[in-house]
Amino acid sequence: MSINPNTPKGTRDYSSEVLLKRNYLKKILQKAFESFAFEPLETPSFEKLSTLTGKYGDEGDRLIFKILNSGEKLKKADLNSFKENDLKKFSFSISEKALRYDLTVPLARYVAGNQNDLIFPFRRYQMQNVWRADRPQHGRFQEFCQCDADIVGVKSLLQEIEMISLFDHIFNNVNLKGVTVKINHRKIIEGIVNLTENKNKLVDYTVAIDKLEKVGIEGVEKELISKGFRESDIDKIKNIIKLEGSPEIILDELEYALKDSNKGLEGINELRYIFSKLNCFEFKSINIKIDLTLARGLNYYTGTIVEVMGPENVKMGSIGGGGRYDDLTNSFGLKNMSGIGVSFGFDRLYLVLDELDLFPININLNTEVLFVNLGNESVDIALNKINKLRLKGVIGEIYPINIKLSKQLNYANKKKIPFVVIIGDEEIKNKKITLKNMSTGEQVQILLSQLEKSILY
Amino acid sequence: MSINPNTPKGTRDYSSEVLLKRNYLKKILQKAFESFAFEPLETPSFEKLSTLTGKYGDEGDRLIFKILNSGEKLKKADLNSFKENDLKKFSFSISEKALRYDLTVPLARYVAGNQNDLIFPFRRYQMQNVWRADRPQHGRFQEFCQCDADIVGVKSLLQEIEMISLFDHIFNNVNLKGVTVKINHRKIIEGIVNLTENKNKLVDYTVAIDKLEKVGIEGVEKELISKGFRESDIDKIKNIIKLEGSPEIILDELEYALKDSNKGLEGINELRYIFSKLNCFEFKSINIKIDLTLARGLNYYTGTIVEVMGPENVKMGSIGGGGRYDDLTNSFGLKNMSGIGVSFGFDRLYLVLDELDLFPININLNTEVLFVNLGNESVDIALNKINKLRLKGVIGEIYPINIKLSKQLNYANKKKIPFVVIIGDEEIKNKKITLKNMSTGEQVQILLSQLEKSILY
Repeated sequence: MSINPNTPKGTRDYSSEVLLKRNYLKKILQKAFESFAFEPLETPSFEKLSTLTGKYGDEGDRLIFKILNSGEKLKKADLNSFKENDLKKFSFSISEKALRYDLTVPLARYVAGNQNDLIFPFRRYQMQNVWRADRPQHGRFQEFCQCDADIVGVKSLLQEIEMISLFDHIFNNVNLKGVTVKINHRKIIEGIVNLTENKNKLVDYTVAIDKLEKVGIEGVEKELISKGFRESDIDKIKNIIKLEGSPEIILDELEYALKDSNKGLEGINELRYIFSKLNCFEFKSINIKIDLTLARGLNYYTGTIVEVMGPENVKMGSIGGGGRYDDLTNSFGLKNMSGIGVSFGFDRLYLVLDELDLFPININLNTEVLFVNLGNESVDIALNKINKLRLKGVIGEIYPINIKLSKQLNYANKKKIPFVVIIGDEEIKNKKITLKNMSTGEQVQILLSQLEKSILY
Repeated sequence: MSINPNTPKGTRDYSSEVLLKRNYLKKILQKAFESFAFEPLETPSFEKLSTLTGKYGDEGDRLIFKILNSGEKLKKADLNSFKENDLKKFSFSISEKALRYDLTVPLARYVAGNQNDLIFPFRRYQMQNVWRADRPQHGRFQEFCQCDADIVGVKSLLQEIEMISLFDHIFNNVNLKGVTVKINHRKIIEGIVNLTENKNKLVDYTVAIDKLEKVGIEGVEKELISKGFRESDIDKIKNIIKLEGSPEIILDELEYALKDSNKGLEGINELRYIFSKLNCFEFKSINIKIDLTLARGLNYYTGTIVEVMGPENVKMGSIGGGGRYDDLTNSFGLKNMSGIGVSFGFDRLYLVLDELDLFPININLNTEVLFVNLGNESVDIALNKINKLRLKGVIGEIYPINIKLSKQLNYANKKKIPFVVIIGDEEIKNKKITLKNMSTGEQVQILLSQLEKSILY
């Protein structure tokens, strides 16, 4: 019985055509990160399970891919917890490692583990796959690529500005215009919650408001009420988060509304400073606007938060985001490591560029010249020549078997190879080769030594 | 309690310094594969468990990392097989996916699944990580990178020649000399076994001889005897495999010894043809020699097999290998797909280059210019300038906080940043900047517009 040649659901093969575009995009991201003085880091695909669990909330913990212990270690399976239907405990008894879920926790682990060797502020970028046991659906995969840049070890609002410049730098370099960077501040959110009777419910509030786009304002209200928020509090909140206008107008009104919240005012002042500095730049690809409904689910954010939305004519939602955190490395025993990070949703960005036809048309790796195979002597000449061409970067191949010329030319046509070299008896006698231009059909006899010039220029 | 910030054993973080060298090597491999007209392919990190099991022998099956089913699927755990100590069956009841073990089986799965869209002969290269639950030890990791190139769909000895040229091309491009390519042929091995009373014991023989380097000739003899080979047969074998000399001499003597084995003679003729063609080239980095003890453990090889040994002064053993197979895609329902593949042991090759100091000294990504932070106006000027520099590819950063100048210069020194820009009150008054060369200590006042020229040339 033969095995079905499918990939697991939620995963994909990348053929040459897609991969060349992906590599183009990766290279642009890489160059941008590097010119912003981020240095590369790569971490292992799997981490100790204890490194990952408890960092992403209950939902996240469920979506972590665990690796089954092998060999004798499997004997430690805790059958009691299985029988008691405690699948979590059961899985921990047979698994010690898990696949990377994001790039932030591995960064925290790396910084804590190498704190004595790193120079702070530590600027690193990382472009690697992450894995999530999410239900696969259109545009959502179980294996996908994240591209993160973080600065760890110093708190300075200049870094917020750098990160926003980085967004513009990258989107501009891929010719993507009309990107919106939504910005908010965790302390402003805290200030808003502090206006209500529910001062301790910051997490409940952020979890609820984070679903605004998915469930609408009615859905958010419903969740808030279920968490104990009163109608009157919700009205207060709604009056604030609906504020619109230029950053200056929003911040002025907000300052009045949150005048009694020190936290809230801190957040407002930070955003004021950031916007004042952003005026140094003429951004080409991004518009920045305050969005008071932006919360970002991850609880480690403590300051500015941003979310990047693709152009309005492409329905893709968020293509990136980030924010400032104060305690990244805390759980690894290293305190007071403030930092800021941004993350690019590589696969979504790819889809946006593809939909807008923004990949350059000249990304390809086509064979440039095919030597047809007319038997022994013809092959000797071809072999000798082709490796010299390859050393100069020419992409060349020799047809592997001596079959009918028309079949070999057909192969060249199917592969869209522009030039074919024919070395038959007549050519060998004349000490020449025939060069056939496959798009025009034109054939010329030239000296072998002229080949390179003829196909390259 | 804080969590120990270690990676799982057998895995590594790659810091910038190592990663830059790894990326240099990857790029050379990539360019070589591409100029040999291989197109890139990437497959998912995990495959269906059914795709991988049974392909690598019992030992291989044990070393495959299985991924634990998540959620409700875990309820299907087969406790009976656990109680009966059938851990294999137990693990299959709670795992449906597994991490990639090599790049060959995913290729076979890909070719079978896309047979109607591919143009044959299909030439692909693939550079991705693989995972093996091997006991970690010096130089052996649980996660490592393989770089494979294969040509699938046509049988032609020209491809053997191409693959050997590819080895030379790549080693030459990394300046590695003195590499030995050992070559043998599965049909010659079959011919040798056919000389004995043990005609059906080809697999037993290859498994035993494959361990020659590890256990010595006595160890191999012992294993052969345990498998039923007679002393007299072993003497026959030893007399043949000890043949030495030029390829021509070995092949002549072998032809006499195997004159009654059609298989053996086929193998000899193929090697004769390959060596005759190899004379077309002047290899710069490799020496090719016949090694009749070479077997290569993997049972899918059916023709020429090669193994690549690093220079003798580096004790690293095999840094690559490959061979021809006839039935790669058979188990996925696609018959008669002959092909040939080579694989580079990326991590070992890296270690060889590192030991021989063959990485270029100018691979680095150092920040080229640091703008020190002397407060508000200084930062405005820096922000404005730095993004213009970055657009031109200059690697620049601004110190994030306004602390004592000496501390900022100390940061530049630690990071080996060659140039520092100082914009203080005096500079602002004079509409100039101070450029400090950190290696000479020299300081000059220049116009901001001269900065780029001053640091780049």
